[in-house]
Amino acid sequence: MRLTQFARMLLVEWRKLKLPVSGETVVVAVSGGADSTALLLAIAELKSQYKLHVNVCVAHLDHRLRKSSAKDAKWVSELAAELGFRAVIGRSKVAEQARTSGENLEQAARKARDAVLERTAKQVSANYVLTAHTMDDQAETVLLRLMRGSGGDGLGGMEAVRPLAKNSAVKLVRPMLWARRLETEDYCRLRKTEFLSDEMNDDQTFARVRVRKQLLPLMQSFNNRVVEALSRTAAQLREDGALLFDNSGALLRQAVVSTQQNETAAPALPALDVKVLANAPPALRRRALREWLSEARGNARRLEMVHLLAVEKLLEGNAGGRVVELPQGGRVRRRRNRLEFEFEND
Amino acid sequence: MRLTQFARMLLVEWRKLKLPVSGETVVVAVSGGADSTALLLAIAELKSQYKLHVNVCVAHLDHRLRKSSAKDAKWVSELAAELGFRAVIGRSKVAEQARTSGENLEQAARKARDAVLERTAKQVSANYVLTAHTMDDQAETVLLRLMRGSGGDGLGGMEAVRPLAKNSAVKLVRPMLWARRLETEDYCRLRKTEFLSDEMNDDQTFARVRVRKQLLPLMQSFNNRVVEALSRTAAQLREDGALLFDNSGALLRQAVVSTQQNETAAPALPALDVKVLANAPPALRRRALREWLSEARGNARRLEMVHLLAVEKLLEGNAGGRVVELPQGGRVRRRRNRLEFEFEND
Repeated sequence: MRLTQFARMLLVEWRKLKLPVSGETVVVAVSGGADSTALLLAIAELKSQYKLHVNVCVAHLDHRLRKSSAKDAKWVSELAAELGFRAVIGRSKVAEQARTSGENLEQAARKARDAVLERTAKQVSANYVLTAHTMDDQAETVLLRLMRGSGGDGLGGMEAVRPLAKNSAVKLVRPMLWARRLETEDYCRLRKTEFLSDEMNDDQTFARVRVRKQLLPLMQSFNNRVVEALSRTAAQLREDGALLFDNSGALLRQAVVSTQQNETAAPALPALDVKVLANAPPALRRRALREWLSEARGNARRLEMVHLLAVEKLLEGNAGGRVVELPQGGRVRRRRNRLEFEFEND
Repeated sequence: MRLTQFARMLLVEWRKLKLPVSGETVVVAVSGGADSTALLLAIAELKSQYKLHVNVCVAHLDHRLRKSSAKDAKWVSELAAELGFRAVIGRSKVAEQARTSGENLEQAARKARDAVLERTAKQVSANYVLTAHTMDDQAETVLLRLMRGSGGDGLGGMEAVRPLAKNSAVKLVRPMLWARRLETEDYCRLRKTEFLSDEMNDDQTFARVRVRKQLLPLMQSFNNRVVEALSRTAAQLREDGALLFDNSGALLRQAVVSTQQNETAAPALPALDVKVLANAPPALRRRALREWLSEARGNARRLEMVHLLAVEKLLEGNAGGRVVELPQGGRVRRRRNRLEFEFEND
């Protein structure tokens, strides 16, 4: 039997991303929607055609946001069983967690999903976790970030490969960024396999859903291939970003002044030399500052351009004593010729 | 009398852009719409308050696209006269020119306008030509380019300062990119001065008008300050672009192989070394290729990402003889270890 076009495309990407072809277990995140169902089916096809020899473990999060979520989990388990794959179902009361932590539903759901993926990867000793994000997801991400005022790095959208978590050896891989969402649906139909439709995908209180249902269709009236255009732009911005990141890393190393251990238990973040930064190109300076702050805070979440611009302003002039407060904790203080990071409770 | 906020903002930008404050003539492009009327009025205000001492020459294009265009030209002349400024009215049958050249109306109108500006600048020995593009124009430009699939450089939008034409010593300056369109209208009202409304601004067959009337309002429902966000993103991408351009310029100089004069009258474009380019970071390689091709063709117009990607593909493997045809003339040929540019008629 010949490979379908869809499976062939996945195989090309699989090789390009240097995913393992045998002797390992990969975890595949499956919600049961068309995208992840298509990914799972295509892997099954490649295995049945002896193109891949990896073991597959399906991971699914039962988010308990709807009564039907237990049924969805069962459906995913059964699909995995039919294909001869192991399945791990994680359960998490996402709505409750969102209430407790003050995050929105999307954030809480993502966190819960990531926890399941990490746990599963550990459990089956997998080095790779695969998600089925498509080119449409990429375009939506780019537009959401654009409207939020992201710079070039944010507009690069999702990486095809990144660490699953900070300092994790496990990689999160997105081998379907070449596929349009409609192609995944077509492929499911071709393989005569049902897929679940997530009611959240129709809930226009989510910005992402409104991008999908309103903004992208309007943009398509300007350019019918706007999703492809956005995806190509994002890929190019990621290349630009990689180069700029290399250069800004060098700047950051140059700007670091000797570390002073302070008396608290928290690891000291090195202070930065104002003069080195003030004379650097803004494109590199901003990235160096972002990296420095991410290091201090554990991540760069909610760190928007406005905060970086405020920190940059601290570099102007000679006066010390000025402070910029950051969202979710921490502040940057200008002290003579240095920038110092402090936690709230210092 | 105190300066208005609007004039004060213009003055801040004027100084930031290092525009002359005395002893020179600057040309101001005035269509008669709110934006350019506000710019002219604000310059007049700064002059009357002794903040500026430049001479002003108003330039206007009577594009003859509507019967009313002669009346508009007269209106602009009278406004200039009232403010004590000289006015130069250029006349051009834009519709006819568009038909002859095969360009669209917008392109033909822009070309005719640029010709008037250049002629006027020469006539009054001006080093600076000012246009009244606002932050809204910038946001529209960014979105139009995004939907067309521009890379980071295109998404940087309009520069605040650029040469009026290739190799021109005259600078085109946009000192109003900080202003929202509504602010220009408010300022005109404050100054009790009418402004013209261009019917083309309501014609939704123009992509730019649809961006203004449909796309941006929809995006504002996601982020009320999306115009500001887009403008800030564009500014940051221009900074990234400047740094990348420096680096890619160095790469291009490194890739150039010894020039061979050919026998045609056209100046030979140096060939490029495939090996140098193939090993360079894609972010720099693409920019180096774009610069090389712009040099050959006199400009980078209609040179889209797809063409650059096609030329990049020529760098793969060892086989020569492959060719990429470029839009509006010229082709790139891979010959052994070189890339060569040829004109159609070579």
